[in-house]
Amino acid sequence: MIERPTAQRAAIDEAPPPNRKTERTRKRRANAIGLGVLNGHLGYFVRRLQVWVFQDFVRTLAPIRIRPAQYSVLVVIETNPGLSQADIAERLGIERAQLVRLLDRLERRGFTRRLPSLKDRRSHALFLTREGQRSLRRIKALAAQHEAQLAEQLGADKRKLLLEMLKKFGRPAKPNGARAKHG
Amino acid sequence: MIERPTAQRAAIDEAPPPNRKTERTRKRRANAIGLGVLNGHLGYFVRRLQVWVFQDFVRTLAPIRIRPAQYSVLVVIETNPGLSQADIAERLGIERAQLVRLLDRLERRGFTRRLPSLKDRRSHALFLTREGQRSLRRIKALAAQHEAQLAEQLGADKRKLLLEMLKKFGRPAKPNGARAKHG
Repeated sequence: MIERPTAQRAAIDEAPPPNRKTERTRKRRANAIGLGVLNGHLGYFVRRLQVWVFQDFVRTLAPIRIRPAQYSVLVVIETNPGLSQADIAERLGIERAQLVRLLDRLERRGFTRRLPSLKDRRSHALFLTREGQRSLRRIKALAAQHEAQLAEQLGADKRKLLLEMLKKFGRPAKPNGARAKHG
Repeated sequence: MIERPTAQRAAIDEAPPPNRKTERTRKRRANAIGLGVLNGHLGYFVRRLQVWVFQDFVRTLAPIRIRPAQYSVLVVIETNPGLSQADIAERLGIERAQLVRLLDRLERRGFTRRLPSLKDRRSHALFLTREGQRSLRRIKALAAQHEAQLAEQLGADKRKLLLEMLKKFGRPAKPNGARAKHG
């Protein structure tokens, strides 16, 4: 029923046991492990980049405790004051329940306000407070630092090319085409 | 304290209220909402592509109920029979606790087995069962279908170029450089 280790596995087995391994040895050992057909899956490598970006963003913005989805929401409210929750959820591809929790947290920190909509009594209009506007200036500066770190990691030209290529993705090029979501 | 809607907002306000909107109107309306400085953040667009990939993968592999992380683990075990949990966690950037739960599920479905390691009594060696090998053939066919859908969405040339560009990311090009993680 079960396959026993192959010759390919032998090289990995010869590495020293976990407690004596340094970080570097552990990584070299890990990189020796073949990815098989994952090498042909773009999604696998998109996910690796996405996780790197997420971790670097969270680390860089730790002084002000802002996560990527919170940043997206703050920026979109700043750009479109008075936006409804439904619109922002649709635009950023965030689930309604998650957006409500996220806005609760931003409101508790005094960054955003929900006011009754002037157009539609069932919905709210979202705004930044003055404190939110002030904090967003600092948040944007840290986010720009994160972006610079990403450019350093990828190479500035490659970052620019990727940005151009990926921006076109999810645009309504095809009618009824699947839309990308961002959380 | 609060900014009132600007002229930019007016165009959005003129759209019909939610209950009368069709899906298409809702999307057109959402696309009219400006992203502000998010337009300069590669991570935002990486996230959108990543979520599209995730959703398409889950949908395409729904007949066999396999998610991206499970697929990655199955493929890496197939490629490296006898791999330890520590090695697979490091290689794919999956947290140990999450990997244990994932392997529990794969084992309950009869796809994988954990056997005592011949080299290190504290760890397990991971293998596919015969059932796991058989199922993985079908899983790979569906994953290839997902990849074809992604190629259709992006364009085949663009998919190939992105794959080449992103593969290089996270490689140990710089000593002590940050490593990408995949979950």
